[in-house]
Amino acid sequence: MQEYRISDAVIRRLPKYYRYLSELEAAGIERVSSSRMSKDMNLNASQIRRDLNCFGGFGQQGYGYQVSRLRIEIMRILGIGVPHNMIILGAGNIGQALLKYRNFAAEGYTITAVFDIDENIIGKETGGLVVRPLSELREYAQKNRVDVAIIAVPKQHAPGLADELAALGIKGIWNFAPADVAPKGVSVENVHLSDSLYVLSYRIREKNEGFKR
Amino acid sequence: MQEYRISDAVIRRLPKYYRYLSELEAAGIERVSSSRMSKDMNLNASQIRRDLNCFGGFGQQGYGYQVSRLRIEIMRILGIGVPHNMIILGAGNIGQALLKYRNFAAEGYTITAVFDIDENIIGKETGGLVVRPLSELREYAQKNRVDVAIIAVPKQHAPGLADELAALGIKGIWNFAPADVAPKGVSVENVHLSDSLYVLSYRIREKNEGFKR
Repeated sequence: MQEYRISDAVIRRLPKYYRYLSELEAAGIERVSSSRMSKDMNLNASQIRRDLNCFGGFGQQGYGYQVSRLRIEIMRILGIGVPHNMIILGAGNIGQALLKYRNFAAEGYTITAVFDIDENIIGKETGGLVVRPLSELREYAQKNRVDVAIIAVPKQHAPGLADELAALGIKGIWNFAPADVAPKGVSVENVHLSDSLYVLSYRIREKNEGFKR
Repeated sequence: MQEYRISDAVIRRLPKYYRYLSELEAAGIERVSSSRMSKDMNLNASQIRRDLNCFGGFGQQGYGYQVSRLRIEIMRILGIGVPHNMIILGAGNIGQALLKYRNFAAEGYTITAVFDIDENIIGKETGGLVVRPLSELREYAQKNRVDVAIIAVPKQHAPGLADELAALGIKGIWNFAPADVAPKGVSVENVHLSDSLYVLSYRIREKNEGFKR
């Protein structure tokens, strides 16, 4: 089925709708109105209706959305639940934390291999996988399906590695190195943990110093 | 000095400007125009000018912005470089990764203590700190300045813990548990790693299935 492309801003909100609807479903709630979603999610109700209309949301005037139907539709759009094979490049702190963080696997995102260049950790087991030498990446990617490569290497190695991953035909990069990477033809999500720390730091200052509104 | 409050959307973009300007500065670039920033950062040039005007940006027609002056101003607004004491609640995978991730310390964000409830890890050293029992949190917070508490505990414990932190007068919470917390009077940044994974998953599907534009 061919679909129309959804705007970036809407796509970024979809995971939030998904989380919210999952919580409602877990709480046994069957229907939700856009005005209730608006209050709970701190989003404008008309924006919610517009967002959900984008992909043929199932709202009915005075009746609301069917929680589980809407959740399943968003899940389908995001590709959640579809098996994704992920590999981790870099078995340092971030790499190991992601490897041990099991929540993604339940949604279909499975980590299938982990690579490093450090002789001290190559061959050792971590989070149920044996760390492979980075020199085996090419062969691994040729023999196995890899949907997402997670970059968790030091900043200076990230751009070169991203280009190598693109050359291997890997379509998705989840980049945790503090350097934006953007190889051609690859979808990239750059994760900058410090961004949210800085926003928090601003808000604390704002509170302490009582900025005018 | 009392300042005017900056809109949320602008605040969220400030860390990106900060990162970008830091890279320019490291590369020895002294001036940058809004049109170059626009290309490099994939933001609208007039939006950049509006954002930077919000806090009296230093742009001059046909001359551009002074990189280091602008960077320092954004750094000051965000409170980067000002000492922040942070404590970690939960010495599991995410907690330990953050503890060992040294990049924040260089910007003034120092982790001063780590707490857990697991008897098997309490008293053990990790990332240079001895894990304390959570029961000592109150006493610690009364005796030491704590600017930011990092929540890295299982989902079900996060809301209760957030309320406890609020009651202790801690002003900032950086929440890594996959449950939004919002105690009154506290600034909270909820980090949802899976959100960016889902966006990536959407984009891979979009690419594979060739959605219409």
